[in-house]
Amino acid sequence: MGDKPVWEPIGSSFIQHYYQLFGNDRTQLSAVYIDASCLTWEGQQFQGKAAIVKKLSSLPFQKIQDSLMAQDHQPIPDTFIISMVVGQLKADEDPIMGFHQMFLLKNIQVAWVCTDDMFRLALHNFG
Amino acid sequence: MGDKPVWEPIGSSFIQHYYQLFGNDRTQLSAVYIDASCLTWEGQQFQGKAAIVKKLSSLPFQKIQDSLMAQDHQPIPDTFIISMVVGQLKADEDPIMGFHQMFLLKNIQVAWVCTDDMFRLALHNFG
Repeated sequence: MGDKPVWEPIGSSFIQHYYQLFGNDRTQLSAVYIDASCLTWEGQQFQGKAAIVKKLSSLPFQKIQDSLMAQDHQPIPDTFIISMVVGQLKADEDPIMGFHQMFLLKNIQVAWVCTDDMFRLALHNFG
Repeated sequence: MGDKPVWEPIGSSFIQHYYQLFGNDRTQLSAVYIDASCLTWEGQQFQGKAAIVKKLSSLPFQKIQDSLMAQDHQPIPDTFIISMVVGQLKADEDPIMGFHQMFLLKNIQVAWVCTDDMFRLALHNFG
């Protein structure tokens, strides 16, 4: 993992693109998934572009703001990149919540798509 | 992703084993990494079993308790499993902190090893 690794800008471009679509029009996220993609959203599993976009589009908020605090990227042989994001989100007028999300990105033809996606709210109870 | 998927018990067994070693004797984590493994620890990158175990062994605490709140697992073709963990840790007498960690597991011969690992403390600032 030398200087200026090529997977860092690829991963961070994908992340930027993803949250832009997520914030503006979640139906457009169909562009980043494929029919073999899997999503685990708060423990619930969805497989395939259509099921994933249906789930994401039906999340019960009108507007959402994501603020990313850290992102990490690692290359995997066979044209994969793993990205992990730590962030905060504000959905409608709900309180700000922490979240983390993982993406496995695959290079298919000239595009990077998400084959695996996991999302969890950071519901820590420090009591 | 049907009922009782085989990757769930494999992933959760790995996770249990990992945090048991992490809590008891971090030098023994050499058993779960290979020379091609990558670790990103709070944004710092380490490659190879030796460098990873050196980093993990030198973390500045004597005892640590991990409490896992959620774990998700997904299969990937070519004998991979991705696991994501949300947890809390208590290092020595420090306050409890949230964390999340991602593991890419690969089946090599009869063992599951970790080829990619990312760790981040959940340092959310909701101010």
